[in-house]
Amino acid sequence: MNITEEEKKAVYKTIYNRRDTRSEFKTEDIDDEVINRILDAAHHAPSVGFMQPWDFIVVRDKKVKEQIKDGFEQANEEAKLMFKDERQKIYKSLKLEGILEAPVGICITCNRNRAGETVLGRTANLDMDLYSAVCAVQTLWIAARAENLGVGWVSIIHHDVLKEILDIPEDIVPIAYLCIGKVDYFHDKPELEKAGWTSRIPLDQLVHYDKWNKKEN
Amino acid sequence: MNITEEEKKAVYKTIYNRRDTRSEFKTEDIDDEVINRILDAAHHAPSVGFMQPWDFIVVRDKKVKEQIKDGFEQANEEAKLMFKDERQKIYKSLKLEGILEAPVGICITCNRNRAGETVLGRTANLDMDLYSAVCAVQTLWIAARAENLGVGWVSIIHHDVLKEILDIPEDIVPIAYLCIGKVDYFHDKPELEKAGWTSRIPLDQLVHYDKWNKKEN
Repeated sequence: MNITEEEKKAVYKTIYNRRDTRSEFKTEDIDDEVINRILDAAHHAPSVGFMQPWDFIVVRDKKVKEQIKDGFEQANEEAKLMFKDERQKIYKSLKLEGILEAPVGICITCNRNRAGETVLGRTANLDMDLYSAVCAVQTLWIAARAENLGVGWVSIIHHDVLKEILDIPEDIVPIAYLCIGKVDYFHDKPELEKAGWTSRIPLDQLVHYDKWNKKEN
Repeated sequence: MNITEEEKKAVYKTIYNRRDTRSEFKTEDIDDEVINRILDAAHHAPSVGFMQPWDFIVVRDKKVKEQIKDGFEQANEEAKLMFKDERQKIYKSLKLEGILEAPVGICITCNRNRAGETVLGRTANLDMDLYSAVCAVQTLWIAARAENLGVGWVSIIHHDVLKEILDIPEDIVPIAYLCIGKVDYFHDKPELEKAGWTSRIPLDQLVHYDKWNKKEN
């Protein structure tokens, strides 16, 4: 199946205009049809040994969201104390999630036992199943952006708390809790770049040839 | 920035037609311009605290590839013994990498210290930087597919071996070694599905609502 020049441009446009959304969510709900499309896209992410280790919990219940918000607040209070002086001041000024505003939350998990103990491709690297589930997260994110939906990854929450709130079984690993919704607008750059938290690294500093630190092709 | 209906279709087409390529690589080289485009796309993956923890080692040197192939062979011999009877027979019949055939290899790594010890968003979940680097892998993979390039993830190699071959420093974590090249064709389905190794799970089995195992919306 050939991807045309126009289609390629659409893919790059989507990748470059994807953002982590926290503040611009509209509260109106998302159609199930759209949610199913982005979940099905995520389900077509690569997975080690084709084990498809992911599950998706779609959260719309306000009470569940409020518990997740509490979990965030707790972890964020701890986090604030880890930054000092000016950094702490900036940290406190940042809005880092849109849990209650976003109409839909999606928790993506990894079932490490889905394909038994021995998994093709997971023999030398035992984290490959976790990485597969992360590929599902990023695939969902890109599909959502193509639907003009904002996505925000809430990483500031303890996963044991998340598991308890969502009744996730002991042996299932939460990978991401995502907030998803229509947005007023997408930022033209990452918000942390705009806020002066950190800058984009020039790509050539990150590229090596044949060996680490060999900078010539 | 609005994504149009046509552009959305292009994104889904690319996601659904992405494959893990092992056998269909053409040996002809890929232009640096194209490699730079897919690396720059990967560099626009989401990262926790905008820490951009990734580095990219672009491998074209035949000797380096041969060492990586040796590393694969070693890990694959170990892997074969972990499967029994019929599964072992199928396992042995599968071609699981295209290290020497693909013109370009790209190793993606994670520098866990890139933004200091305390990273915004990595406070409650210490693996978030590794997950960010995985998002770069999947973003590169989708961009490469949009360029009609095949990508194969070589997970059957010990990362200490990969580090030694590529001179990767002690504190840097390899995430993925990818084989990349033009292809004769893309499979219409994952090869492991075609080979009867495992089937695609119906999506509705993987979707829950508000709580784990609550199957109604």
